[in-house]
Amino acid sequence: MAKHITPRSEDYSRWYQDIVKKAGLADNSAVRGCMVIKPYGYAIWEKMRDQLDKMFKETGHVNAYFPLFIPKSFLSKEAEHVEGFAKECAVVTHHRLMNDPNGNGVVVDPSAKLEEELIVRPTSETIIWNTYKDWIQSYRDLPLLINQWANVVRWEMRTRPFLRTAEFLWQEGHTAHATSQEAEAEARQMHDVYARFCEEFIAMPVIKGSKTDNEKFAGAEDTYTIEALMQDGKALQAGTSHFLGQNFAKAFDVKYLNSENKEEYVWATSWGVTTRLVGALVMTHSDDEGLVLPPKLAPIQVVIVPIPKPSPEIDELAEKLLAGLSAKGVSVKYDKDDTKRPGFKFAEYEMKGVPVRLGIGKRDLEKGVVEVARRDEKTKESVAVDQVENHVLNLLDEIQANLLDRVKRFRDDHITEVNSFDEFKEVIEGKGGFVSAHWDGTTATEKKIKELTKATIRCIPLDQADESGTCVLTGEPSARRVLFAKAY
Amino acid sequence: MAKHITPRSEDYSRWYQDIVKKAGLADNSAVRGCMVIKPYGYAIWEKMRDQLDKMFKETGHVNAYFPLFIPKSFLSKEAEHVEGFAKECAVVTHHRLMNDPNGNGVVVDPSAKLEEELIVRPTSETIIWNTYKDWIQSYRDLPLLINQWANVVRWEMRTRPFLRTAEFLWQEGHTAHATSQEAEAEARQMHDVYARFCEEFIAMPVIKGSKTDNEKFAGAEDTYTIEALMQDGKALQAGTSHFLGQNFAKAFDVKYLNSENKEEYVWATSWGVTTRLVGALVMTHSDDEGLVLPPKLAPIQVVIVPIPKPSPEIDELAEKLLAGLSAKGVSVKYDKDDTKRPGFKFAEYEMKGVPVRLGIGKRDLEKGVVEVARRDEKTKESVAVDQVENHVLNLLDEIQANLLDRVKRFRDDHITEVNSFDEFKEVIEGKGGFVSAHWDGTTATEKKIKELTKATIRCIPLDQADESGTCVLTGEPSARRVLFAKAY
Repeated sequence: MAKHITPRSEDYSRWYQDIVKKAGLADNSAVRGCMVIKPYGYAIWEKMRDQLDKMFKETGHVNAYFPLFIPKSFLSKEAEHVEGFAKECAVVTHHRLMNDPNGNGVVVDPSAKLEEELIVRPTSETIIWNTYKDWIQSYRDLPLLINQWANVVRWEMRTRPFLRTAEFLWQEGHTAHATSQEAEAEARQMHDVYARFCEEFIAMPVIKGSKTDNEKFAGAEDTYTIEALMQDGKALQAGTSHFLGQNFAKAFDVKYLNSENKEEYVWATSWGVTTRLVGALVMTHSDDEGLVLPPKLAPIQVVIVPIPKPSPEIDELAEKLLAGLSAKGVSVKYDKDDTKRPGFKFAEYEMKGVPVRLGIGKRDLEKGVVEVARRDEKTKESVAVDQVENHVLNLLDEIQANLLDRVKRFRDDHITEVNSFDEFKEVIEGKGGFVSAHWDGTTATEKKIKELTKATIRCIPLDQADESGTCVLTGEPSARRVLFAKAY
Repeated sequence: MAKHITPRSEDYSRWYQDIVKKAGLADNSAVRGCMVIKPYGYAIWEKMRDQLDKMFKETGHVNAYFPLFIPKSFLSKEAEHVEGFAKECAVVTHHRLMNDPNGNGVVVDPSAKLEEELIVRPTSETIIWNTYKDWIQSYRDLPLLINQWANVVRWEMRTRPFLRTAEFLWQEGHTAHATSQEAEAEARQMHDVYARFCEEFIAMPVIKGSKTDNEKFAGAEDTYTIEALMQDGKALQAGTSHFLGQNFAKAFDVKYLNSENKEEYVWATSWGVTTRLVGALVMTHSDDEGLVLPPKLAPIQVVIVPIPKPSPEIDELAEKLLAGLSAKGVSVKYDKDDTKRPGFKFAEYEMKGVPVRLGIGKRDLEKGVVEVARRDEKTKESVAVDQVENHVLNLLDEIQANLLDRVKRFRDDHITEVNSFDEFKEVIEGKGGFVSAHWDGTTATEKKIKELTKATIRCIPLDQADESGTCVLTGEPSARRVLFAKAY
């Protein structure tokens, strides 16, 4: 019944695409690399967004909105930023179309060429710091703790729904501070917020660490990352938070008068997560029958299916359960559609990852029980009618915890310490997952290892004791292990 | 203290710009015609968005997200739509920048020219109906009730913050139906939702009507509009809902199999409101001292100011009031900043339109009272400490109702029936507001009147009895009056 989802064992990448399509999360569009986020996929993103927004506001941030377009010259103001972002992007060169003189639809009006090209924002540091220049004069204007929910465009060559698309939705926090310490603390705070969100809501454990110089954000002093492990043993960067030092303040000349009346450049952070998190959620929990959703982010948490079809008695109980659970904040759907059989509906809600399914049949009703099925473990049990509400409330918590638990076990089983390059290659090629290895700290070695194994340094973990050793590739001294993996 | 706001009587347009700037709603940006929506302005938009989103969901709609870009050829598929929208828009022609060979920053890479130009969406009917083609096969797939929150770009020549900007934020509903009747009913339902939102939340009464052929949306069969009146006597179109007939279904070949297994084209609606509503809110209620906000959309509903500065006794009462009101869902700020004097704060919150201000002074405290000031009528009264909470709750409702009331009175006083063209011109030039006049129903007359008076037909009101008469310009027969006004 699972509408022919490719099994993970056969082709993980096709499995992913099948789930995205068949669970109704996203569709391709007529524009290369841009996806359509379908209502069910968007409902998951909305839940993520609302929760993140709450966490941002609890940590003192406010939202604002900056222009979609960035004047071309802005991108070259910060030396490293230009290398990282002024490459594959959408360039607006004209502002008018006109009727084709030959009668074939519309053509670009050559007389409407812009004096300076505009870039569709790939990220907004430049336009925002150009604005902050006007907003910041003295230490009284600091800190500035602003977030933006927006769409951005990066002209990626190979795209995959949610994981990498030309246009994507995200939030970007951009904060300004009087001191280096305060900006550092902010970058780490948001790093923590992201990690907490992933664990508590996506039920996806992440490793917190910092990026190497080679992998950090273009224009950052330090990039903090959260790295998750997917079921195929590849890592996925789930969010980043950057300490930008004074780089953008210097590029856009943003100074403030400190309390001693002396001018100083402002300190900055930026941090973001994207619709990629929806892809991460899909890949973290789902199985060969379809999507598996953590209850906290499921648009429908409980579905009630009449067996084999609605009847006055079944309707009465269903409506009662729906009202009771809804009053407790649970999102419940009673599927009364009598043109579809229960088996079809079961497969459908399995595909859509609804965490709990309640089946109400005539015979069950006589026995005073309801069939309760959980999506994560695919188990069923009969529960007395008057116990159902409490049972479901507990079950939703249990499923949320169970998902995190089982992913954590899988992840922990896939962090492998290696002490030679042969071992390194063997694990990367075979078992997969994170490889914890000594590295000599040079970009040259990092690049060489990537060239030889396709594995990159995902992060230098923060919660890890120092341990001296020797680099797996060069044998040079190393002060600590770092985590390598193949990555999305 | 009002930071030099230009009085309305002196220059209404400058007054508006002063309020937007000085209340911290929006700022100009480095990109022509694009504004930066500042945190305070964005907080108002967020409140509007959340409320509208709730109303859309209550009427059965779901959100989705479609691409920012539209292939150029799509815009010419619907004959009238191309005339209306394929004109002033942002055109993406290239997808890469490169380092300038002469070392001057970055330049467009000429080798990265797109095969087909992409248009930054001015509205999304075309890309959405191209997608609906894949989503709709049979009557079981209908209705499709989808909304999108997004940014759009129209390359306007003359821009004004919120009222008309090159990029703006909006929502666009796009629904698909099996019958003409159902689509018509949907267009009218959303028209009603908009009118209700404006009255109940913005406290801005609107006139519901339909647009003339000349003023309707490019590609629509019928456009329903809500028209509000600003303090300067000019009308403002606050939202539109379109019955699109089968025009887009035909342009994008979207058919469905009806229950008799016959193929038919799908019926459509679209409807939208934008960040323009923030501008409408500002112009509807504000005065020469600053912004006036209806409590239901105020980011801060109540501000507590210690007089002259915080003290343990004042803090204690303030925190108690804050906790009590917050528990009732009121958004309260206690301004403890002791670097600013009360007078400065009073002016500041007046400027920001905070509906209720509580002043707590030492002497008041001894008398067991608090000073309660309302922003709308600028009156103050002493209220016993133990009455304050209830008093404020009632006052917020009273202010919301009072704002609607006084605007309604102003609006009703500015609908003038005229029966000759001399009268028409006199009212349009002098008193302003809506002029209710007979019109012969031709586009030629409509255009002639606009040319002579700058007044346009704002709408053919829905709630109005038929009344035969003769056109004010041509003397030809007319079946009903329509509303003319100068407009934003």
